Amino acid sequence: MKAPLIDNLQYANFSPKVFAQMREGGVDAVHVTIAYHESFREMVLNLESWNRWFEDHPNLIFKGTSAACVRRAQAEGRTAIFFGFQNPSPIEDDIGLVEICHQLGIRFMQLTYNNQSLLATGCYEDEDTGLTRMGKQVVREMNRVGMVVDMSHSAERSTLEAIAHSTRPIAITHANPHWWHPALRNKSDTVLKALTGAGGMLGFSIYPHHLAGGSNCTLERFCAMIADAADRYGAEHLGIGTDLCQDQPDSVVEWMRVGRWSKVIDYGEGSASNAGFPPMPVWFSDNRDFGNIRKGLEAVGMAPAEIDGIMGGNWLRFYEESFGPQ
Amino acid sequence: MKAPLIDNLQYANFSPKVFAQMREGGVDAVHVTIAYHESFREMVLNLESWNRWFEDHPNLIFKGTSAACVRRAQAEGRTAIFFGFQNPSPIEDDIGLVEICHQLGIRFMQLTYNNQSLLATGCYEDEDTGLTRMGKQVVREMNRVGMVVDMSHSAERSTLEAIAHSTRPIAITHANPHWWHPALRNKSDTVLKALTGAGGMLGFSIYPHHLAGGSNCTLERFCAMIADAADRYGAEHLGIGTDLCQDQPDSVVEWMRVGRWSKVIDYGEGSASNAGFPPMPVWFSDNRDFGNIRKGLEAVGMAPAEIDGIMGGNWLRFYEESFGPQ
Repeated sequence: MKAPLIDNLQYANFSPKVFAQMREGGVDAVHVTIAYHESFREMVLNLESWNRWFEDHPNLIFKGTSAACVRRAQAEGRTAIFFGFQNPSPIEDDIGLVEICHQLGIRFMQLTYNNQSLLATGCYEDEDTGLTRMGKQVVREMNRVGMVVDMSHSAERSTLEAIAHSTRPIAITHANPHWWHPALRNKSDTVLKALTGAGGMLGFSIYPHHLAGGSNCTLERFCAMIADAADRYGAEHLGIGTDLCQDQPDSVVEWMRVGRWSKVIDYGEGSASNAGFPPMPVWFSDNRDFGNIRKGLEAVGMAPAEIDGIMGGNWLRFYEESFGPQ
Repeated sequence: MKAPLIDNLQYANFSPKVFAQMREGGVDAVHVTIAYHESFREMVLNLESWNRWFEDHPNLIFKGTSAACVRRAQAEGRTAIFFGFQNPSPIEDDIGLVEICHQLGIRFMQLTYNNQSLLATGCYEDEDTGLTRMGKQVVREMNRVGMVVDMSHSAERSTLEAIAHSTRPIAITHANPHWWHPALRNKSDTVLKALTGAGGMLGFSIYPHHLAGGSNCTLERFCAMIADAADRYGAEHLGIGTDLCQDQPDSVVEWMRVGRWSKVIDYGEGSASNAGFPPMPVWFSDNRDFGNIRKGLEAVGMAPAEIDGIMGGNWLRFYEESFGPQ
């Protein structure tokens, strides 16, 4: 069967327009973020919104829970939507909510979002404890039920400890190598070697703050970085996680950064003079542009089988290994 | 006016029986714990229980919110009940809840309870980050509204950073010096010097795991330690915080230790063979026994004015300085 096209991270302002673009772009599966700072109850409200979309647009999208849903999406010409959290706030202080969330369809959870959480340390803290007492127990529980540990926004030591402590491969769903662009959110060679060496996956981000050259990063430069990463880490551990935030107002990026934890503004990856969502590069505006990435990877000389893997086949394999009970 | 009798930490299974014992013992004010692992909404349920007790037993107790309430309690022959949290779980991830909780009458909040919180590190973690990004902001907000930072269950570095970062004196409401009994929960000389040097208060605990000799600790040994501490840190920075857990079933100490964060039992200060609440020393069973402590302090030769301070005068001064806006 043809390799699927999977984007393993989007936080668009989702709408029937965006779902139609997924179909136009031939996207078989998307992992969407449904929580940053939400409590369990607030996250359930977001699930309710998705249930309405699934009910109203069954010709475009359906809820994905296993790798088989990706194959079904391909066969039926629809897009499977997988859920994830960018912060553990929906499990609050309650390890029992890990299994409840898995039963509700959540398949990825970041242990932190920039700040210290109850589980681990985020990449914007000055100090990094690694996994906390609760963090070690929650990773074990995520392993048991089949929820993927995602360390995209975590600090270095916490990430290395999550890789070591997890008995199953983990993911960094949306980030790039620090050696290519030294942003705080991008990952060190040490982390990427440990991640992929343990069978984990890296999803390349197209969020401009993660790109060398920012919004002006060329497709060639992005794809050359992917080819380099394939040489270093093995193409089979690589995929796409665009971090597409299409149609979001700037108030949303402020909320993502500040949540409810601060009374003063925190610009995160931005700055006072560049506080909003940055413009996307010209070669990737929305779900219709994945063909550009495929062409870019061809142009830098990657083999068709490697490209198939990066565009979705590798994420499919990872879904097969990751979403069931241990 | 006569110095008040204040116990600055109790977590009894409160009941009209206990309130009557407070009156029998001449206790003018008690700081009671109303949250360990509760969310905001769950903590409000506990406030509702207290409101019912205040409504039903106005001859025994009333809600304390300021130092003047202690004087009123003395004048009216009642006990003023002050509220505190042993964990920041009721403010969840929301800095705005600090002021809301102050408006509801909460006057003390621990930044951690044994484990890592969103704010700081607890004393049972292997690694101690100090104050987190959110922690620094929350301490500032607590300073602004008049909620006391309590570091009784926090780790060393976090405690030192809280003392340094807070613009107002902080408290360790219930612990003893590590040099007297080297329990994980007791505090180093470094911490106690920094605490008292910055105008903060230490409340001596009678919880047996914090006592040299445990449940068999004699009154003489306890009071001799207090006299030593007065020599080292100044008697004016010392008070009582018994940690009285009267009438609680052992299921409660298990919940205090494990909350919802772990699927496996954690014995905390206890052990598999000694998992429950330890028996209190014979000289302090309930609120009627404060006279024993006063006599014990007299017997070790402390001056009456020092004893008056330790038995309540010092907490009253601290309440005067601490509960109003900055």
